[in-house]
Amino acid sequence: MKAVVVGVGDELLSGLVVNTNASMIGELFLAAGVPVVRSVCVGDVEDEIVEVLRDACRSGDVVVVTGGLGPTQDDRTREAMARLLEVGLVRDEAVVDDIRERFRRFSREMPEANAKQGDHPEGTTLIPNAWGTAPGIRAELDGAIVYAIPGVPGEARRMVVDQILPDIGRRPDVAASIRTREVRCVGVPESSLADMFGDLAEAENPKMAFLPGGGEIRLRFVASDDDPSVCERLLDDAEAIVRERLAEVVYGVGDTTLEAVVGGMLRDRGLTVAVAESCTAGMLAARIANVPGASDYLRGGVVGYATDAKASVLGVDLSDGPVSQRTTSDMAASVRSRFASDVALAITCVAGPDPQDGVPVGTTIIALAHADNVEVRELRLPGDRAQIRQFATTFALNLLRLHLL
Amino acid sequence: MKAVVVGVGDELLSGLVVNTNASMIGELFLAAGVPVVRSVCVGDVEDEIVEVLRDACRSGDVVVVTGGLGPTQDDRTREAMARLLEVGLVRDEAVVDDIRERFRRFSREMPEANAKQGDHPEGTTLIPNAWGTAPGIRAELDGAIVYAIPGVPGEARRMVVDQILPDIGRRPDVAASIRTREVRCVGVPESSLADMFGDLAEAENPKMAFLPGGGEIRLRFVASDDDPSVCERLLDDAEAIVRERLAEVVYGVGDTTLEAVVGGMLRDRGLTVAVAESCTAGMLAARIANVPGASDYLRGGVVGYATDAKASVLGVDLSDGPVSQRTTSDMAASVRSRFASDVALAITCVAGPDPQDGVPVGTTIIALAHADNVEVRELRLPGDRAQIRQFATTFALNLLRLHLL
Repeated sequence: MKAVVVGVGDELLSGLVVNTNASMIGELFLAAGVPVVRSVCVGDVEDEIVEVLRDACRSGDVVVVTGGLGPTQDDRTREAMARLLEVGLVRDEAVVDDIRERFRRFSREMPEANAKQGDHPEGTTLIPNAWGTAPGIRAELDGAIVYAIPGVPGEARRMVVDQILPDIGRRPDVAASIRTREVRCVGVPESSLADMFGDLAEAENPKMAFLPGGGEIRLRFVASDDDPSVCERLLDDAEAIVRERLAEVVYGVGDTTLEAVVGGMLRDRGLTVAVAESCTAGMLAARIANVPGASDYLRGGVVGYATDAKASVLGVDLSDGPVSQRTTSDMAASVRSRFASDVALAITCVAGPDPQDGVPVGTTIIALAHADNVEVRELRLPGDRAQIRQFATTFALNLLRLHLL
Repeated sequence: MKAVVVGVGDELLSGLVVNTNASMIGELFLAAGVPVVRSVCVGDVEDEIVEVLRDACRSGDVVVVTGGLGPTQDDRTREAMARLLEVGLVRDEAVVDDIRERFRRFSREMPEANAKQGDHPEGTTLIPNAWGTAPGIRAELDGAIVYAIPGVPGEARRMVVDQILPDIGRRPDVAASIRTREVRCVGVPESSLADMFGDLAEAENPKMAFLPGGGEIRLRFVASDDDPSVCERLLDDAEAIVRERLAEVVYGVGDTTLEAVVGGMLRDRGLTVAVAESCTAGMLAARIANVPGASDYLRGGVVGYATDAKASVLGVDLSDGPVSQRTTSDMAASVRSRFASDVALAITCVAGPDPQDGVPVGTTIIALAHADNVEVRELRLPGDRAQIRQFATTFALNLLRLHLL
């Protein structure tokens, strides 16, 4: 069984909006054993939507159409489907009442235009939308099942997960299973991984991909087989090989993040952390606080951006210059003491665009203070200002993770 | 003249990679007067690429193909083009030498597979790639011009800007001009804007779109006319209407950011800023530091995440609770004094997922301390944890902007 995705909307063609719905659907459908074989974007032009939909129903067994279900004149997906089905539109008054009620809850009167969102081609089914005003539409067309869903990414994802995938899963011809697994690695360059995993990269099942980003690398495996338990075994084997070769370079599997893993380790050990930052200016603290419940272990931090503020607020020794091992080490020790935390991280770096006092762009120093000692690492990070700052927070979190292991 | 974009690669269909090339091309081509009317993604299957390319040449006068030009067996764009043109592939040895030389510069030997990147269908032209190993290919097919370019976003953008747009601009039939302008607004709900600009939203030229995100709204205008100076006049008129109705809600035009605008105001007035953060945990400081040169005005900040750290590090009065006007106001005054800054911002909020000591999720308090006074604002922000924290930093920056105006 194969799927085709159709995105409707001028904004997808004019560059206003990146079509993240297509990749969301591609990923979820693949995991459900229904690969997307083509994805098409078309503008808000009824004739064009009709043409693209007709082709889509020829190429795919399932067609997911996103967008064009809003209340305005521009929204033509309903009309295009009705034309292909050679039927008229009918209005579901119960759905219109629901939409009216949704507006009332926000103390607003429903604009009359929104009544149109209760319309659907005769003989098709409306798909309820718990998250917005536009219901989806399910139709059968030329032997394909067509699901038209809203273009708003959050609503689209909910409708795919809650309604469409279960509906597809009920079909007897979805036999082949596809399972994916991501092994998350940090602290190793991509080129080394490529050299170490040439054998897995060439394997057909599971297929492997390297996904680098932000100083981390995910190894993604996609296994396929008629029997889902075979898929799981293939993935288990691949994961075991990766863990054996990379040991502590692997920090997690699946949807987790480095900050969540480090946070969990701190919580398990009953430890607290504080941070002192210069160039990253709060990014490390904010990243630790991205995890709900971070208040269990994050005490806080200091951003010493101006050089003299490092001295006045943190009382550090600047004699080797602001981006130096001595200053960074002092920052970690100072913030640990001021916030009475068990461990503390400090980052200084030259993020650019220009060198600072002769220290080249990319120079990054990370210090970790704990009860026994202060450890310091010096790196030279590649990339632009945003990448250097992002990489620096990743390396700092990883230094803490390796210490806690 | 109309364009069609074709993205080649399994990774675009499986959700591994979001097709940002399509929106990049959509935006740049629209600005050059050549709207993209359809965008298609297809996998690494030669037959499918041939079929999609054939259709694309029927729908568009210009076709831009991204991806499938790499050195591996999976890369089939060259072969698909040759089949459509009914010619063979020829190898440009000078290009192969360039690729070999590029590897040598990185102290590596060129893998023999890369020689394939010098291949192109007979009768077509190679487009030099200064940023990577894969040259592009220019072909004429069925009356359309086809440009095949690499899928790596940075290389794709450079090739579009440096080679393809100038090539298209030389064609006599690209007469109509299209110009865009974005007016950036902050501090007003989208629904109010929709009510205030019903007239502009219905106008055909320039076309207007509301682009909300992160607590800000961009009003995007797209003007078209044969005469570019007419486009500019239409955009000037629209911008003047927006500025007249919204006054200080407009903070900038074009590519700028709120933090860059606020930073520029601080620099112009010779003022410095410090920040104290709780729930945002460094996001505000990091956002101010996103702007190169922020060291001219950002002194630093304190993240008081644990409640008692607010008291011990910042010495604030917690008697009304950690998320209260009194605590937030004290935080702003304290951090201003500790960092010896001219102005200071403080944020406390309940970002969720759970209420804190009976204070509901979304409650956000922002304080601005300056020489005369501390101003405090209390808001109830919508959204999830990430949105609330993002919105809070936007409102804090806007409070400072309005003070500086």
